[in-house]
Amino acid sequence: MSDYKSILSASCPMPKLDFEIITMGHGSGGLLTHKLLDAGVFDVLSNEYLDKQHDGAVFDVTPGKMAFTTDSYVVSPIFFPGGNIGELAINGTVNDLCMCGAKAAFISLSFIIEEGLRVSDFWEILLHIKQAADHAGVKIVTGDTKVVERGKGDKIFINTSGVGKVHPEAAISVDRIKTGDKVIISNDIARHGIAIMSVREGLEFESDIESDTCHFNHIVEQLLEGFGNGIHFLRDATRGGLSTILNEVSQSLSKGIAIHQKDITVDESVAGACELLGLDPLYVANEGVFVAFVEASIADQVVQKLKSWENGLHAAVIGEVADQHPGQVVLHSQIGGRRVVNMLVGEQLPRIC
Amino acid sequence: MSDYKSILSASCPMPKLDFEIITMGHGSGGLLTHKLLDAGVFDVLSNEYLDKQHDGAVFDVTPGKMAFTTDSYVVSPIFFPGGNIGELAINGTVNDLCMCGAKAAFISLSFIIEEGLRVSDFWEILLHIKQAADHAGVKIVTGDTKVVERGKGDKIFINTSGVGKVHPEAAISVDRIKTGDKVIISNDIARHGIAIMSVREGLEFESDIESDTCHFNHIVEQLLEGFGNGIHFLRDATRGGLSTILNEVSQSLSKGIAIHQKDITVDESVAGACELLGLDPLYVANEGVFVAFVEASIADQVVQKLKSWENGLHAAVIGEVADQHPGQVVLHSQIGGRRVVNMLVGEQLPRIC
Repeated sequence: MSDYKSILSASCPMPKLDFEIITMGHGSGGLLTHKLLDAGVFDVLSNEYLDKQHDGAVFDVTPGKMAFTTDSYVVSPIFFPGGNIGELAINGTVNDLCMCGAKAAFISLSFIIEEGLRVSDFWEILLHIKQAADHAGVKIVTGDTKVVERGKGDKIFINTSGVGKVHPEAAISVDRIKTGDKVIISNDIARHGIAIMSVREGLEFESDIESDTCHFNHIVEQLLEGFGNGIHFLRDATRGGLSTILNEVSQSLSKGIAIHQKDITVDESVAGACELLGLDPLYVANEGVFVAFVEASIADQVVQKLKSWENGLHAAVIGEVADQHPGQVVLHSQIGGRRVVNMLVGEQLPRIC
Repeated sequence: MSDYKSILSASCPMPKLDFEIITMGHGSGGLLTHKLLDAGVFDVLSNEYLDKQHDGAVFDVTPGKMAFTTDSYVVSPIFFPGGNIGELAINGTVNDLCMCGAKAAFISLSFIIEEGLRVSDFWEILLHIKQAADHAGVKIVTGDTKVVERGKGDKIFINTSGVGKVHPEAAISVDRIKTGDKVIISNDIARHGIAIMSVREGLEFESDIESDTCHFNHIVEQLLEGFGNGIHFLRDATRGGLSTILNEVSQSLSKGIAIHQKDITVDESVAGACELLGLDPLYVANEGVFVAFVEASIADQVVQKLKSWENGLHAAVIGEVADQHPGQVVLHSQIGGRRVVNMLVGEQLPRIC
């Protein structure tokens, strides 16, 4: 579930952190802030840009299109089966750039720490951030650390923003979706939300349900290399789950989206947990699943490409864009029924990311 | 002190926000999140990039150097004399880009809202964000909204990140500072920290002390146009105040910095408040003051340029870089004494920005 202990013992002990909890002084900008940063953060994340320790990072850009995105991560608990807030903060922001047709390159990292956070927890998160950044091939080039009083935060919130060059062949835009486009999902759904809920509710299932958190930085590049502007639109199915993003798209297009339940994979344990918790997997957040709207003629090849990726084993064409039912998502059930799937109203799973 | 009421009544009433407080559901990613965003946020901040409402913003870049920065704002209280958290979040991030020799262009905006925040407060902050962005000439192009439970946040935290092109003539780097360089401050010091403390402590002074928050996006461009690589280094004197940033520089250079108290302006009310609160103005945070290390031959012209700016009336050469006292900042007092000014230890003024 987590290999931080091996990372810790292997390369990154905490030799220079001679304090056990983070205090208000660590956010003051003065000597203690420097101690916190110098005593590890800069060492762990070191790269040519961050090492300059200026107010921002400076890098060369070549002509073309650039994508820019931001997300704050407030997931609770900060450690959960299959991941943690640090890993999520890297993968989530990398993925938002990918959904713009870009390859994530540079990431900013901003902590809002609640006074009293254990340094060992901070350290573990930091190592996972480093590992996730390395996996995705991105550099953390600039950052910020603030500390708030006990009861004014919740352990740690992390903002990551990111920039990356848009692939020259990419033409990702909701208005490129047309009737007849195929809707592809990159993997089985609902694992992240259930992994979080299982910890919160103290539930134990027959098999451990782990978050699906992963990055899309390489697979999306491969899709764009292979299929160029045949990929019309991409979006990750995070907060609000698959149904919410499909609703956003159908409303924005004023077209209908038909999806077929039989083609949407839900892991057996996840389905069981959803039943137990009274949740519809269509509304449960994912952190490693995206939806692609593609030219019908390439849909099967896109699915094959996704299936060759370790996080795309359950990739499938799950539906198509239609003129019927404009603004609505219509689910064709396994037993032949049809129902309209609405957008999530209110909170289903708060603080899932 | 604040002109939001006129803004409110003039152009941006709250016609579509039919709820009074922000609830957990507004951060779910579902219908309530859309309601919060559509019912105002997108209207107020509207521009060609944000309007696409995709996972990130995409824009064209031309060859050259780009700067990228991030900051999270946790200032308490969220409204204070002379400013508010929204304005600070724009100015602060714009200024960090300026300190890299860049002109800020695109800003990301991420809210972490505590459940129960009044919509009217959110709205006021949003309008100030818009106004500050317009003043600085930047666009808010991408964003995120999270909501946390009561007691897990503190009204609202805001992260802004930003990107901007580095001026072609800029060569801003700490290692360009050399012995004999002049140290210039852009204005009088300590107003921001004292404005915050006066509200927190419920103090009333003879005259209102207002935060100095402002943006540097135009003045720094003018300095770089006028003086190019004669400007060796720039840094804003925020958390930890003037003394902390001078210490950072002197330690990083292993050179000494001599500063002259008589040349550092502190407003009379601010000085009085500092005395009352037992604070040294050299350690009090600023939000509208930066320090420039420049070639000695251009120092006076730089000061003249700064003085022509509405936020630079008290600009002055305050010192010089020396080989003596490497790693130390030495203050020459008005009565002829000398003392070493150390970096701020621990917290002096928490949550100042």
